[in-house]
Amino acid sequence: MRMLGVLGGMGPLASAEFMKALTLETPAERDQDHVPAILWSDPRVPDRTAARKHGGEDPLPWLLRGIRGLEAAGCGAIAIPCNTAHGWFAEMQAATSLPILHIVDAAAADLRRQGVTSGRIGLMGTTATLDMRLYQERLGIECITPGDALMQSHVMPAVGLVKANRVAEAYAPLAEVARRLRAEGADAVVLGCTEIPLGVAAGPALEFPVVDTVAALARAAIAWALAERDRAG
Amino acid sequence: MRMLGVLGGMGPLASAEFMKALTLETPAERDQDHVPAILWSDPRVPDRTAARKHGGEDPLPWLLRGIRGLEAAGCGAIAIPCNTAHGWFAEMQAATSLPILHIVDAAAADLRRQGVTSGRIGLMGTTATLDMRLYQERLGIECITPGDALMQSHVMPAVGLVKANRVAEAYAPLAEVARRLRAEGADAVVLGCTEIPLGVAAGPALEFPVVDTVAALARAAIAWALAERDRAG
Repeated sequence: MRMLGVLGGMGPLASAEFMKALTLETPAERDQDHVPAILWSDPRVPDRTAARKHGGEDPLPWLLRGIRGLEAAGCGAIAIPCNTAHGWFAEMQAATSLPILHIVDAAAADLRRQGVTSGRIGLMGTTATLDMRLYQERLGIECITPGDALMQSHVMPAVGLVKANRVAEAYAPLAEVARRLRAEGADAVVLGCTEIPLGVAAGPALEFPVVDTVAALARAAIAWALAERDRAG
Repeated sequence: MRMLGVLGGMGPLASAEFMKALTLETPAERDQDHVPAILWSDPRVPDRTAARKHGGEDPLPWLLRGIRGLEAAGCGAIAIPCNTAHGWFAEMQAATSLPILHIVDAAAADLRRQGVTSGRIGLMGTTATLDMRLYQERLGIECITPGDALMQSHVMPAVGLVKANRVAEAYAPLAEVARRLRAEGADAVVLGCTEIPLGVAAGPALEFPVVDTVAALARAAIAWALAERDRAG
């Protein structure tokens, strides 16, 4: 069977958590039952939000370098545990014959799993993810988002704290924003930046449905791997 | 700079924890400060203990396949977060020009960091790691080990529980064995199988110095990466 390719490093802690979720969510009795995977963790990829919002260096050449590496290693599909990088999904998918598992589709599947199929969801993510409307255009459910002030004061600083290994400090601002979205009528809150579930896991569980996009993408990857195992016989 | 190669999947949860430790132990303010790494996580590698103890399938061809993959991806050094696989260290190092960071050397450095430079250490690991004398021949400190009965009743079943995603259940038997080694006069206990620190982390911290070989190897890898960054300018 072909291995799963993971284009990661954006950030590296989210990639490590993805590998952990990939393992813990797989039905397994021993090493050999687990999903063979290659993680290309290159945190040097230029900042995705800076590229979209402030004319920063284009990450696409770095993303394509990783995809070439995963192709050369013999991978059969690619998962990218970074929501903002999906702003370059079309260019990446056009550049490879391997299927790329879209993180918004994984989030949608997780909402269905939790019984949330209509109404409104709260959407947290980077400013670039929100501005590119990655979820709003693909999810099929109305999204409400934090205002610009909360994005600047709470969400973006918290994402930065996780990337700087200050995970515990990210809990309070992220939990506050999630609770505000809930109070505004969200049936569930999608943690649509892979740093966000790491911060939210650092404190008491939230009292309403949330979508952990790291775990959701891991489940989509496991479904691919189990089908690949069947296919390879 | 060249990327760090991680030959993993043995088991996959230990590899994920290695990637997490690699990230959390790196001084970083943003993604781009972290260590570029490729994790080759192939849990299909035949069981190392079964190969050494019971004439099971030879893992070496699988290990070499991973090393070839990491070489082809442009890695500059290799870390292997599996103690038992170091029973094939000489064959692996002979097959590649890349330096392989030896996990026993990383454990020795961690003992020095904790001020343990003489006396006796307690050694926990797989039966194969203990029988191959990977630590006893290389560490330079007297090692005491659990008896065969405790290995069969406690240590090996606990390692299997971690590989089967039943991490919390592994705590009690592992903590009991570590405490017995301490009672027998160990100044510190080396958790010389990468599943063991995962189980030990699932409960209250032990009351004496332990060496987490996952974190120790991550620190050695970070030291390599920082030197590589300086070298590459």
